[in-house]
Amino acid sequence: MIRFAVIGHKAVTTPDFSLNDMPGGAGRMDVLCRCINASFFLSHDLRRNTECYLILKGGEQADPENTVTLRFSGEKIKSLNPDERSAGALIKKALVTIPEEEYQRAAPGISIRKSGLSKLLQEHPFAVLDENGEDIRTAKILPENFILSDHQNFTEEEMDLIKDLPKYSVGPRVLHADHTITVILNEFDRRGEQA
Amino acid sequence: MIRFAVIGHKAVTTPDFSLNDMPGGAGRMDVLCRCINASFFLSHDLRRNTECYLILKGGEQADPENTVTLRFSGEKIKSLNPDERSAGALIKKALVTIPEEEYQRAAPGISIRKSGLSKLLQEHPFAVLDENGEDIRTAKILPENFILSDHQNFTEEEMDLIKDLPKYSVGPRVLHADHTITVILNEFDRRGEQA
Repeated sequence: MIRFAVIGHKAVTTPDFSLNDMPGGAGRMDVLCRCINASFFLSHDLRRNTECYLILKGGEQADPENTVTLRFSGEKIKSLNPDERSAGALIKKALVTIPEEEYQRAAPGISIRKSGLSKLLQEHPFAVLDENGEDIRTAKILPENFILSDHQNFTEEEMDLIKDLPKYSVGPRVLHADHTITVILNEFDRRGEQA
Repeated sequence: MIRFAVIGHKAVTTPDFSLNDMPGGAGRMDVLCRCINASFFLSHDLRRNTECYLILKGGEQADPENTVTLRFSGEKIKSLNPDERSAGALIKKALVTIPEEEYQRAAPGISIRKSGLSKLLQEHPFAVLDENGEDIRTAKILPENFILSDHQNFTEEEMDLIKDLPKYSVGPRVLHADHTITVILNEFDRRGEQA
């Protein structure tokens, strides 16, 4: 299983956002929608062995207690089209379910729970994307789980959580999170590992 | 200069489409919007040495005479944000200008003209993306100009135009056009060629 976790620093945690204003009112939800697209879509197929975790930290006045994690599973996801609105509509639908401590099914292939990065790090051995990290192309073994940030840098608190994790780079230029996912999956494809 | 030309087989050529229905009423304009995003965006920067050509062939009842080419130039483009609606809004704005035989400026960094693939092929030495083509990663020299198709395969007429062009592949799996652009630009980045 290949996992991408993307932190949405301003992403709202309630379903009342407009699909017409995902960059604004929804707190750059558009970035997260593109990460969903990049995680799953092949030409006329979906990557079934990939999961994408969206960590929604809430809007401007966010309370850390209200952070929500959405888990998208390529194995079971349905009704996902490649356009941003399609992913946004699924996020809206999933956020109707009130999150609890443990994952609950919110839609086919989508689960929701409270909590964010800290809990996720206890469950899987994640690596971090960092422009000074080891090049994924020359790495002997690729990690299976990657943490990415949205348009903002990791916060100090997040940096503290991830500072000892292995660091990898996708090349000499810093890319958007979704483009980074695309490049990583291309590397897996080339190594013959099923994503 | 690195150029990507993407054929939008059903993409409308008039500005009266809804940004809320780009996959449907606008003829999979969402695919083309994502290609714009992939062609230009770096983290907190734009690729200034890239051009993206959208070949809009018109809706269901398209007349080949009405095919339109939009040329997006990274050097001069303005007001482009990474979300699909932003690219869609620029396409709408550009399509207000009635196309003539030669390029006219339709918005900052965006030009419009009549005609499509055939004329473009006379102007630049394009390569084609093809799963059986030479791997871009091992190619000694990368071509600078690439033709891609949207969600549909090349038509017989298009195949006839491109059948003798050099063919390149981005790996063992067939990707969406925008993901393909991302992988190609990553290869340019790694070779130290400015895109």
